[in-house]
Amino acid sequence: MINEKMRMLGAKRSVIRELFEYGKQRKAEIGYDNVYDFSLGNPSVPAPKEVNEGIKKLIESESSLALHGYTSAQGDASVREAIADYINKNYDAGVRADCIYMSVGAAAALTSTLTALVNEGEEVIVLSPYFPEYKVFIEKCGGVVREVRCDDRLMPDIPAIEKAINEKTAAIIVNSPNNPTGAIYPEGIIASLCDLLRRSSEKIGHPIYLISDEPYRELAYDGVKVPYLTKFYDNTIVCYSFSKSLSIPGERIGYALVSPSCEDFISVYQAICGAGRALGYVCAPSMLQKLIPLCLGVTSDISIYDRNRQILLEKLSEYGFDMVRPQGAFYLFIKSPSGDATEFCERAKKHEILIVASDDFGCPGYARLSYCVTTEQIERALPAFKALAESYKE
Amino acid sequence: MINEKMRMLGAKRSVIRELFEYGKQRKAEIGYDNVYDFSLGNPSVPAPKEVNEGIKKLIESESSLALHGYTSAQGDASVREAIADYINKNYDAGVRADCIYMSVGAAAALTSTLTALVNEGEEVIVLSPYFPEYKVFIEKCGGVVREVRCDDRLMPDIPAIEKAINEKTAAIIVNSPNNPTGAIYPEGIIASLCDLLRRSSEKIGHPIYLISDEPYRELAYDGVKVPYLTKFYDNTIVCYSFSKSLSIPGERIGYALVSPSCEDFISVYQAICGAGRALGYVCAPSMLQKLIPLCLGVTSDISIYDRNRQILLEKLSEYGFDMVRPQGAFYLFIKSPSGDATEFCERAKKHEILIVASDDFGCPGYARLSYCVTTEQIERALPAFKALAESYKE
Repeated sequence: MINEKMRMLGAKRSVIRELFEYGKQRKAEIGYDNVYDFSLGNPSVPAPKEVNEGIKKLIESESSLALHGYTSAQGDASVREAIADYINKNYDAGVRADCIYMSVGAAAALTSTLTALVNEGEEVIVLSPYFPEYKVFIEKCGGVVREVRCDDRLMPDIPAIEKAINEKTAAIIVNSPNNPTGAIYPEGIIASLCDLLRRSSEKIGHPIYLISDEPYRELAYDGVKVPYLTKFYDNTIVCYSFSKSLSIPGERIGYALVSPSCEDFISVYQAICGAGRALGYVCAPSMLQKLIPLCLGVTSDISIYDRNRQILLEKLSEYGFDMVRPQGAFYLFIKSPSGDATEFCERAKKHEILIVASDDFGCPGYARLSYCVTTEQIERALPAFKALAESYKE
Repeated sequence: MINEKMRMLGAKRSVIRELFEYGKQRKAEIGYDNVYDFSLGNPSVPAPKEVNEGIKKLIESESSLALHGYTSAQGDASVREAIADYINKNYDAGVRADCIYMSVGAAAALTSTLTALVNEGEEVIVLSPYFPEYKVFIEKCGGVVREVRCDDRLMPDIPAIEKAINEKTAAIIVNSPNNPTGAIYPEGIIASLCDLLRRSSEKIGHPIYLISDEPYRELAYDGVKVPYLTKFYDNTIVCYSFSKSLSIPGERIGYALVSPSCEDFISVYQAICGAGRALGYVCAPSMLQKLIPLCLGVTSDISIYDRNRQILLEKLSEYGFDMVRPQGAFYLFIKSPSGDATEFCERAKKHEILIVASDDFGCPGYARLSYCVTTEQIERALPAFKALAESYKE
């Protein structure tokens, strides 16, 4: 018996994890500092002091039963109130506490939202390149992945999305700042996309939900603002995580937020609660929930990622690598000089540089470089990048 | 669109929650101390001091990135090692760290295990009365619930289970100490059940998995030992939670453990990992994982529950209520004097006693009383119980 699909998912490591494991082994062989590992999107900047101070404060001030006991399934009411206030202060989005469902990280927010909105055989549009787990999550709830390539600037290709929409389209996932490209979609493109979604929903006779996956919202550089999508489109569900902004990815705390203007608000919110329940999410970790109001508006030191980005952009361009300037997250999406992603990554490996081939992101010909590493590692790696570039000129 | 099943699950509160909400309102009306709320299975005894002390110690001794960063999907290796050692020391069960998958509580262990083992249309046997969420979890992964009534002593009815087994039987869920009855299944009954499962597996040509849901393992009284099921049956998966033993139900930390003797061990373990991934469980909360080795063998003060149990058993029997003496968990399963569960609970309400009708547990004619409350509440409630009993004699 056993569910064979699940076994396969457990047996097959992702390409990213595979490379990470190779890196661990290689570091043991030739020394930690001699391998330039840019494989994982794991924050390298410590959590801001408010995180550990907040936990200590909670332990000292709250009773054990209140702090470690069940919260309601949708999350502690005062925590959701604080998050709604923060969002309204920053984005003037008019959200309410009862729009928010506290989740065990963004992944749980995504699986609960997809399970709530997608029926067997319905389609979910993803913009390639995209985070590979989207495919796992969509297929788990019986949905069909409909990939639409971004344009050459790595922005949503509106005409291509229009062609992909049909009566079976249930939702589209948007991820800005983007993993793996670092792109931030500007207001103009978001507005065009939302216009299309409105027109198409009308045409096909049911709403197309816009699922905004936002773990990197705070990681934006060059003074760029990340548009708040509920203000552009009523049928929006935001899936947010505190993993990257607070450097606490292991703690699994985030939320799903249903736009208060969503046309079937109560049903959508109830379905997300029901899906969370059916997937086994009793409540999001209680102490971590209560930590959030003490950390809203705080981030770990993002300037370190920005410095890494600037060094890499300057030097890699100088060496002759081709890439679109990323404005957010902590990823650089580099064109393979040979046009072949795997060839590029294998050749990089010979220079002890670990970067991820783009094929698993649903898009050939690139490599993803995660620059959430120390600046020292980047500086140490520069001669290897130079040698890698030169190897293509021989 | 929207998934209607999920909406229903989110819209319909469980009977237990409904009663709890009624209780909150009633307390506001007539005063907290005048309502005798026995509705929820929420620990009332604070966490042992090791929990908060352990958290503080981790914050002071571990780096932020190590403490709050991602662990591997199956959980931190040293945490799993510590748990395996503890189990072997206590139960001589010969388990290994790589048998354990750290989960976001027992609910997540159950949904991951069921998703791993059950294919569309396959059957899972549950012994009624049973925890109502089993039905939600089984149906979510396309399985069919097959209820088998316990006998009059609230023990598994082996001949009835034998009749229920057929070629579609994928698994059976066993929960001892039991919610809602408080029963602990003795070795003799476990041995008979496991004999049956072995014979039946052979007969139908594939393994029937034994899923042991064990959030109440440590809550056993009268010196009773809870048998460790992997020692009785090879194809066992234990779903464990630290929620009740450490009084931290909101923190969501537990594990699934595949018996090292499971006949398709690697596939079963991989399928659980794959299911966890597909459901959106990236890893169990990292700091809570690391807390576990500091708290193994420690429990909150369970003697308080035992005292509550003894007072209730003595007094309720004296008043004429009929119940099987529970030896574990913190529930009393009382026979309705009228034979009708709802009538009993509604009549109890008039005496300001809140207990849950057994119908939602898949078994008519009883009420569940959760005695995880203060001893003072129990003492205050006794005259109301007496009056309730007498109302049936009028």
